[in-house]
Amino acid sequence: MRTQPFTFELPFGGMPSEWDNHIQRSLSSMNGQYYDQAAYAEMLSENDQLLYEVYEVLVPAVEGELLHGVSILHPGKVGSEYFMTKGHFHSVLETGEVYYGMHGTGMMVMETPEGESSVMELVPGRVLYVPPRWAHRSVNTGATEDLITFFVYPGNAGHDYGTIEQKGFRKIVVEQDGKPTVIDNPRWQNTP
Amino acid sequence: MRTQPFTFELPFGGMPSEWDNHIQRSLSSMNGQYYDQAAYAEMLSENDQLLYEVYEVLVPAVEGELLHGVSILHPGKVGSEYFMTKGHFHSVLETGEVYYGMHGTGMMVMETPEGESSVMELVPGRVLYVPPRWAHRSVNTGATEDLITFFVYPGNAGHDYGTIEQKGFRKIVVEQDGKPTVIDNPRWQNTP
Repeated sequence: MRTQPFTFELPFGGMPSEWDNHIQRSLSSMNGQYYDQAAYAEMLSENDQLLYEVYEVLVPAVEGELLHGVSILHPGKVGSEYFMTKGHFHSVLETGEVYYGMHGTGMMVMETPEGESSVMELVPGRVLYVPPRWAHRSVNTGATEDLITFFVYPGNAGHDYGTIEQKGFRKIVVEQDGKPTVIDNPRWQNTP
Repeated sequence: MRTQPFTFELPFGGMPSEWDNHIQRSLSSMNGQYYDQAAYAEMLSENDQLLYEVYEVLVPAVEGELLHGVSILHPGKVGSEYFMTKGHFHSVLETGEVYYGMHGTGMMVMETPEGESSVMELVPGRVLYVPPRWAHRSVNTGATEDLITFFVYPGNAGHDYGTIEQKGFRKIVVEQDGKPTVIDNPRWQNTP
Protein backbone atom coordinates (compact mmCIF):
# COMPACT_ATOMS: atom_id res chain seq x y z
CA MET A 1 0.00 0.00 0.00
CA ARG A 2 1.45 3.31 -1.09
CA THR A 3 1.27 6.09 1.47
CA GLN A 4 4.18 8.26 0.31
CA PRO A 5 4.47 10.33 -2.89
CA PHE A 6 5.33 8.19 -5.92
CA THR A 7 5.64 8.29 -9.68
CA PHE A 8 5.39 5.78 -12.48
CA GLU A 9 5.81 5.97 -16.22
CA LEU A 10 2.71 5.96 -18.37
CA PRO A 11 3.75 6.71 -21.95
CA PHE A 12 0.84 8.15 -23.94
CA GLY A 13 -0.75 5.17 -25.67
CA GLY A 14 1.38 2.63 -23.86
CA MET A 15 1.63 0.49 -20.76
CA PRO A 16 2.34 1.63 -17.20
CA SER A 17 5.86 0.88 -15.97
CA GLU A 18 4.62 -0.55 -12.68
CA TRP A 19 1.46 -1.54 -10.86
CA ASP A 20 0.30 -3.31 -7.69
CA ASN A 21 -2.80 -5.03 -9.03
CA HIS A 22 -3.37 -6.67 -12.41
CA ILE A 23 -7.02 -7.57 -12.93
CA GLN A 24 -7.95 -9.76 -15.91
CA ARG A 25 -11.51 -10.36 -17.05
CA SER A 26 -12.34 -13.02 -19.56
CA LEU A 27 -15.51 -13.88 -21.47
CA SER A 28 -16.84 -16.16 -18.73
CA SER A 29 -17.10 -13.21 -16.33
CA MET A 30 -19.68 -11.58 -18.64
CA ASN A 31 -22.42 -14.15 -18.34
CA GLY A 32 -25.81 -12.63 -19.23
CA GLN A 33 -24.35 -9.30 -20.35
CA TYR A 34 -24.25 -9.61 -24.15
CA TYR A 35 -27.60 -9.45 -25.88
CA ASP A 36 -26.83 -12.32 -28.32
CA GLN A 37 -26.71 -15.16 -25.79
CA ALA A 38 -26.29 -17.86 -28.46
CA ALA A 39 -23.25 -16.12 -29.92
CA TYR A 40 -21.88 -15.70 -26.37
CA ALA A 41 -22.33 -19.40 -25.53
CA GLU A 42 -20.72 -20.52 -28.77
CA MET A 43 -17.78 -18.18 -28.35
CA LEU A 44 -17.26 -19.27 -24.75
CA SER A 45 -17.36 -22.96 -25.71
CA GLU A 46 -14.42 -22.34 -28.04
CA ASN A 47 -12.26 -20.25 -25.76
CA ASP A 48 -12.67 -18.25 -22.55
CA GLN A 49 -10.73 -15.41 -24.07
CA LEU A 50 -9.36 -12.39 -22.27
CA LEU A 51 -11.52 -9.30 -22.76
CA TYR A 52 -9.85 -6.64 -20.68
CA GLU A 53 -7.18 -5.89 -18.13
CA VAL A 54 -6.83 -3.27 -15.45
CA TYR A 55 -3.54 -2.16 -13.94
CA GLU A 56 -3.91 -0.36 -10.62
CA VAL A 57 -1.53 1.24 -8.19
CA LEU A 58 -2.72 0.69 -4.64
CA VAL A 59 -3.33 3.65 -2.41
CA PRO A 60 -5.57 3.39 0.65
CA ALA A 61 -9.22 2.92 -0.35
CA VAL A 62 -10.49 5.78 1.77
CA GLU A 63 -12.02 9.20 1.19
CA GLY A 64 -9.50 11.82 0.06
CA GLU A 65 -7.22 9.34 -1.71
CA LEU A 66 -7.42 8.92 -5.49
CA LEU A 67 -7.33 5.43 -6.95
CA HIS A 68 -5.91 5.42 -10.45
CA GLY A 69 -4.60 3.14 -13.13
CA VAL A 70 -4.89 1.96 -16.69
CA SER A 71 -7.63 -0.03 -18.41
CA ILE A 72 -6.86 -2.04 -21.55
CA LEU A 73 -9.91 -3.33 -23.40
CA HIS A 74 -9.11 -5.67 -26.26
CA PRO A 75 -10.91 -5.50 -29.62
CA GLY A 76 -13.59 -7.95 -30.67
CA LYS A 77 -17.31 -8.61 -30.78
CA VAL A 78 -19.81 -11.09 -29.34
CA GLY A 79 -22.20 -11.38 -32.28
CA SER A 80 -22.48 -7.76 -33.41
CA GLU A 81 -21.87 -6.31 -29.92
CA TYR A 82 -18.45 -4.89 -29.19
CA PHE A 83 -16.26 -6.10 -26.35
CA MET A 84 -16.98 -4.09 -23.23
CA THR A 85 -16.18 -3.91 -19.53
CA LYS A 86 -18.58 -5.25 -16.90
CA GLY A 87 -19.56 -1.72 -15.99
CA HIS A 88 -20.63 -0.59 -12.56
CA PHE A 89 -22.05 2.01 -10.28
CA HIS A 90 -19.79 3.17 -7.48
CA SER A 91 -20.87 1.73 -4.12
CA VAL A 92 -20.70 5.27 -2.81
CA LEU A 93 -23.04 6.48 -5.52
CA GLU A 94 -22.12 10.15 -5.16
CA THR A 95 -18.59 9.73 -6.53
CA GLY A 96 -17.40 10.51 -10.06
CA GLU A 97 -14.53 9.38 -12.27
CA VAL A 98 -12.15 11.00 -14.75
CA TYR A 99 -11.05 9.10 -17.86
CA TYR A 100 -8.34 10.07 -20.32
CA GLY A 101 -8.24 8.31 -23.69
CA MET A 102 -4.71 7.14 -24.55
CA HIS A 103 -5.07 4.67 -27.41
CA GLY A 104 -7.75 3.24 -29.66
CA THR A 105 -11.35 4.27 -30.10
CA GLY A 106 -14.42 3.45 -28.06
CA MET A 107 -17.44 4.67 -26.22
CA MET A 108 -18.42 5.22 -22.61
CA VAL A 109 -21.95 4.03 -21.87
CA MET A 110 -23.40 5.78 -18.82
CA GLU A 111 -26.68 5.93 -16.97
CA THR A 112 -28.17 7.02 -13.66
CA PRO A 113 -30.51 5.10 -11.36
CA GLU A 114 -33.21 7.56 -12.42
CA GLY A 115 -32.92 6.48 -16.07
CA GLU A 116 -30.83 9.24 -17.62
CA SER A 117 -28.59 7.77 -20.30
CA SER A 118 -25.52 9.06 -22.14
CA VAL A 119 -23.07 7.49 -24.57
CA MET A 120 -19.90 9.40 -25.46
CA GLU A 121 -16.98 8.65 -27.72
CA LEU A 122 -13.51 8.06 -26.32
CA VAL A 123 -10.47 8.75 -28.45
CA PRO A 124 -6.81 9.41 -27.65
CA GLY A 125 -6.27 12.83 -26.12
CA ARG A 126 -9.84 13.22 -24.89
CA VAL A 127 -10.88 13.69 -21.26
CA LEU A 128 -14.25 12.19 -20.29
CA TYR A 129 -15.96 12.99 -17.01
CA VAL A 130 -18.37 10.55 -15.40
CA PRO A 131 -20.24 12.59 -12.78
CA PRO A 132 -21.33 11.15 -9.43
CA ARG A 133 -24.39 8.81 -9.72
CA TRP A 134 -23.56 7.64 -13.28
CA ALA A 135 -22.88 3.94 -13.90
CA HIS A 136 -20.26 3.53 -16.61
CA ARG A 137 -18.98 0.88 -18.99
CA SER A 138 -16.37 1.30 -21.71
CA VAL A 139 -16.78 -0.31 -25.13
CA ASN A 140 -14.02 -0.89 -27.67
CA THR A 141 -15.38 -0.01 -31.12
CA GLY A 142 -12.04 -0.41 -32.88
CA ALA A 143 -11.46 -3.27 -35.30
CA THR A 144 -7.92 -4.18 -34.29
CA GLU A 145 -6.62 -1.81 -31.61
CA ASP A 146 -6.83 -1.98 -27.83
CA LEU A 147 -8.78 0.78 -26.12
CA ILE A 148 -6.44 2.16 -23.45
CA THR A 149 -7.64 4.65 -20.85
CA PHE A 150 -6.18 6.25 -17.75
CA PHE A 151 -8.70 6.58 -14.92
CA VAL A 152 -8.91 8.37 -11.56
CA TYR A 153 -11.66 7.97 -8.95
CA PRO A 154 -12.13 8.66 -5.23
CA GLY A 155 -10.54 6.15 -2.88
CA ASN A 156 -13.79 5.44 -1.04
CA ALA A 157 -15.92 4.93 -4.20
CA GLY A 158 -16.04 1.13 -4.28
CA HIS A 159 -17.74 -0.91 -7.00
CA ASP A 160 -21.34 -2.05 -7.30
CA TYR A 161 -21.28 -4.59 -10.14
CA GLY A 162 -24.45 -6.38 -9.08
CA THR A 163 -26.98 -3.82 -10.28
CA ILE A 164 -25.63 -3.89 -13.84
CA GLU A 165 -25.22 -7.68 -13.80
CA GLN A 166 -28.91 -7.98 -13.02
CA LYS A 167 -30.37 -5.24 -15.19
CA GLY A 168 -27.78 -4.44 -17.82
CA PHE A 169 -27.43 -0.94 -19.27
CA ARG A 170 -30.33 0.67 -21.11
CA LYS A 171 -28.13 1.18 -24.16
CA ILE A 172 -25.68 -1.13 -25.93
CA VAL A 173 -23.22 -0.55 -28.75
CA VAL A 174 -23.35 -2.82 -31.78
CA GLU A 175 -21.94 -2.84 -35.28
CA GLN A 176 -24.56 -1.93 -37.88
CA ASP A 177 -23.65 -1.35 -41.54
CA GLY A 178 -20.04 -1.58 -40.52
CA LYS A 179 -20.08 1.15 -37.91
CA PRO A 180 -20.68 1.50 -34.16
CA THR A 181 -24.32 2.19 -33.39
CA VAL A 182 -26.02 2.83 -30.06
CA ILE A 183 -29.31 0.96 -29.67
CA ASP A 184 -31.75 0.15 -26.87
CA ASN A 185 -30.74 -2.97 -24.99
CA PRO A 186 -33.35 -5.65 -25.74
CA ARG A 187 -32.33 -7.51 -22.60
CA TRP A 188 -32.53 -4.52 -20.25
CA GLN A 189 -34.75 -5.28 -17.27
CA ASN A 190 -36.46 -2.64 -15.21
CA THR A 191 -36.76 -4.87 -12.20
CA PRO A 192 -35.91 -3.77 -8.67
CA MET B 1 -21.34 24.37 -13.64
CA ARG B 2 -21.17 20.96 -15.27
CA THR B 3 -23.45 18.32 -13.76
CA GLN B 4 -23.87 16.01 -16.77
CA PRO B 5 -21.24 13.77 -18.42
CA PHE B 6 -18.91 15.73 -20.71
CA THR B 7 -15.75 15.43 -22.74
CA PHE B 8 -13.07 17.80 -23.97
CA GLU B 9 -9.98 17.40 -26.07
CA LEU B 10 -6.61 17.41 -24.34
CA PRO B 11 -3.98 16.44 -26.91
CA PHE B 12 -0.90 15.00 -25.21
CA GLY B 13 1.47 17.93 -24.80
CA GLY B 14 -1.05 20.50 -25.94
CA MET B 15 -3.84 22.78 -24.80
CA PRO B 16 -7.35 21.79 -23.71
CA SER B 17 -10.07 22.50 -26.27
CA GLU B 18 -12.33 24.14 -23.70
CA TRP B 19 -12.43 25.31 -20.11
CA ASP B 20 -14.60 27.28 -17.69
CA ASN B 21 -11.91 29.02 -15.66
CA HIS B 22 -8.61 30.50 -16.83
CA ILE B 23 -6.40 31.49 -13.91
CA GLN B 24 -3.27 33.54 -14.61
CA ARG B 25 -0.56 34.19 -12.03
CA SER B 26 2.13 36.76 -12.60
CA LEU B 27 5.35 37.60 -10.77
CA SER B 28 3.63 40.06 -8.42
CA SER B 29 1.55 37.23 -6.92
CA MET B 30 4.75 35.56 -5.65
CA ASN B 31 5.84 38.24 -3.19
CA GLY B 32 8.19 36.77 -0.57
CA GLN B 33 8.38 33.34 -2.21
CA TYR B 34 11.69 33.45 -4.10
CA TYR B 35 14.79 33.29 -1.97
CA ASP B 36 16.66 36.00 -3.92
CA GLN B 37 14.47 38.96 -2.99
CA ALA B 38 16.70 41.49 -4.74
CA ALA B 39 16.49 39.59 -8.02
CA TYR B 40 12.74 39.34 -7.54
CA ALA B 41 12.32 43.08 -6.93
CA GLU B 42 14.44 43.99 -9.92
CA MET B 43 12.62 41.58 -12.21
CA LEU B 44 9.23 42.84 -11.02
CA SER B 45 10.24 46.47 -11.58
CA GLU B 46 10.90 45.66 -15.21
CA ASN B 47 7.80 43.62 -15.97
CA ASP B 48 5.11 41.82 -13.98
CA GLN B 49 5.43 38.85 -16.26
CA LEU B 50 3.09 35.89 -16.48
CA LEU B 51 4.46 32.82 -14.65
CA TYR B 52 1.74 30.24 -15.01
CA GLU B 53 -1.78 29.55 -16.14
CA VAL B 54 -4.40 27.05 -15.04
CA TYR B 55 -7.33 25.93 -17.17
CA GLU B 56 -10.13 24.32 -15.19
CA VAL B 57 -13.45 22.78 -16.08
CA LEU B 58 -16.01 23.54 -13.40
CA VAL B 59 -17.77 20.71 -11.67
CA PRO B 60 -19.42 21.20 -8.27
CA ALA B 61 -16.79 21.73 -5.55
CA VAL B 62 -18.16 19.02 -3.29
CA GLU B 63 -17.02 15.62 -2.04
CA GLY B 64 -17.29 12.87 -4.64
CA GLU B 65 -16.73 15.18 -7.61
CA LEU B 66 -13.29 15.43 -9.23
CA LEU B 67 -11.93 18.83 -10.17
CA HIS B 68 -9.51 18.62 -13.07
CA GLY B 69 -7.71 20.71 -15.61
CA VAL B 70 -4.39 21.72 -17.07
CA SER B 71 -1.53 23.70 -15.58
CA ILE B 72 0.95 25.51 -17.83
CA LEU B 73 4.05 26.79 -16.06
CA HIS B 74 6.27 28.97 -18.24
CA PRO B 75 10.08 28.67 -18.22
CA GLY B 76 12.36 31.14 -16.49
CA LYS B 77 14.21 31.92 -13.29
CA VAL B 78 14.23 34.52 -10.52
CA GLY B 79 17.94 34.72 -9.81
CA SER B 80 18.95 31.06 -9.91
CA GLU B 81 15.54 29.76 -8.74
CA TYR B 82 13.25 28.31 -11.34
CA PHE B 83 9.74 29.59 -11.99
CA MET B 84 7.27 27.77 -9.78
CA THR B 85 3.63 27.76 -8.75
CA LYS B 86 2.48 29.30 -5.46
CA GLY B 87 2.02 25.86 -3.99
CA HIS B 88 -0.53 24.93 -1.39
CA PHE B 89 -1.95 22.50 1.06
CA HIS B 90 -5.52 21.43 0.44
CA SER B 91 -7.92 23.08 2.90
CA VAL B 92 -9.28 19.59 3.55
CA LEU B 93 -5.82 18.32 4.40
CA GLU B 94 -6.68 14.64 3.94
CA THR B 95 -7.13 14.90 0.16
CA GLY B 96 -4.61 13.89 -2.51
CA GLU B 97 -3.96 14.83 -6.13
CA VAL B 98 -2.97 13.01 -9.31
CA TYR B 99 -0.68 14.72 -11.84
CA TYR B 100 0.17 13.54 -15.33
CA GLY B 101 3.15 15.12 -17.09
CA MET B 102 2.28 16.14 -20.66
CA HIS B 103 5.05 18.46 -21.83
CA GLY B 104 8.36 19.86 -20.58
CA THR B 105 10.40 18.91 -17.56
CA GLY B 106 10.07 19.93 -13.95
CA MET B 107 9.83 18.89 -10.36
CA MET B 108 7.10 18.55 -7.77
CA VAL B 109 8.16 19.89 -4.38
CA MET B 110 6.09 18.33 -1.59
CA GLU B 111 6.00 18.39 2.19
CA THR B 112 3.75 17.51 5.11
CA PRO B 113 2.89 19.62 8.15
CA GLU B 114 5.02 17.18 10.16
CA GLY B 115 8.13 18.06 8.13
CA GLU B 116 8.44 15.16 5.70
CA SER B 117 9.78 16.42 2.39
CA SER B 118 9.90 14.95 -1.09
CA VAL B 119 10.95 16.32 -4.49
CA MET B 120 10.19 14.28 -7.59
CA GLU B 121 10.82 14.81 -11.27
CA LEU B 122 7.98 15.39 -13.69
CA VAL B 123 8.39 14.52 -17.35
CA PRO B 124 5.94 13.77 -20.16
CA GLY B 125 4.21 10.43 -19.73
CA ARG B 126 4.81 10.20 -16.00
CA VAL B 127 2.09 9.95 -13.35
CA LEU B 128 2.88 11.60 -10.01
CA TYR B 129 0.76 11.02 -6.92
CA VAL B 130 0.56 13.61 -4.16
CA PRO B 131 -0.94 11.77 -1.18
CA PRO B 132 -3.33 13.40 1.30
CA ARG B 133 -1.55 15.81 3.72
CA TRP B 134 1.23 16.76 1.26
CA ALA B 135 1.56 20.41 0.19
CA HIS B 136 2.72 20.61 -3.43
CA ARG B 137 4.33 23.07 -5.80
CA SER B 138 5.47 22.46 -9.36
CA VAL B 139 8.73 23.90 -10.67
CA ASN B 140 9.67 24.26 -14.34
CA THR B 141 13.33 23.26 -14.71
CA GLY B 142 13.33 23.47 -18.51
CA ALA B 143 15.29 26.18 -20.30
CA THR B 144 12.76 27.03 -22.98
CA GLU B 145 9.70 24.77 -22.75
CA ASP B 146 6.47 25.14 -20.81
CA LEU B 147 5.79 22.53 -18.14
CA ILE B 148 2.30 21.21 -18.88
CA THR B 149 0.49 18.90 -16.47
CA PHE B 150 -2.99 17.42 -16.22
CA PHE B 151 -4.31 17.31 -12.65
CA VAL B 152 -7.21 15.70 -10.81
CA TYR B 153 -8.22 16.32 -7.18
CA PRO B 154 -11.29 15.84 -4.98
CA GLY B 155 -14.05 18.40 -5.41
CA ASN B 156 -14.10 19.32 -1.73
CA ALA B 157 -10.30 19.73 -1.35
CA GLY B 158 -10.05 23.52 -1.47
CA HIS B 159 -6.77 25.47 -1.34
CA ASP B 160 -4.78 26.69 1.62
CA TYR B 161 -2.21 29.07 0.12
CA GLY B 162 -1.60 31.01 3.31
CA THR B 163 0.57 28.47 5.10
CA ILE B 164 3.07 28.30 2.24
CA GLU B 165 2.97 32.08 1.69
CA GLN B 166 4.03 32.52 5.30
CA LYS B 167 6.55 29.72 5.71
CA GLY B 168 7.62 28.72 2.22
CA PHE B 169 8.61 25.13 1.42
CA ARG B 170 11.56 23.50 3.19
CA LYS B 171 13.18 22.78 -0.16
CA ILE B 172 13.67 24.93 -3.24
CA VAL B 173 14.96 24.14 -6.72
CA VAL B 174 17.77 26.26 -8.14
CA GLU B 175 20.19 26.05 -11.03
CA GLN B 176 23.69 25.07 -9.90
CA ASP B 177 26.47 24.29 -12.38
CA GLY B 178 23.86 24.46 -15.12
CA LYS B 179 21.51 21.87 -13.69
CA PRO B 180 18.47 21.73 -11.41
CA THR B 181 19.48 21.20 -7.79
CA VAL B 182 17.33 20.77 -4.70
CA ILE B 183 18.61 22.76 -1.71
CA ASP B 184 17.31 23.76 1.71
CA ASN B 185 15.27 26.94 1.55
CA PRO B 186 17.27 29.65 3.37
CA ARG B 187 14.09 31.65 3.84
CA TRP B 188 12.01 28.81 5.28
CA GLN B 189 10.45 29.78 8.59
CA ASN B 190 9.33 27.32 11.19
CA THR B 191 6.90 29.72 12.74
CA PRO B 192 3.33 28.83 13.66
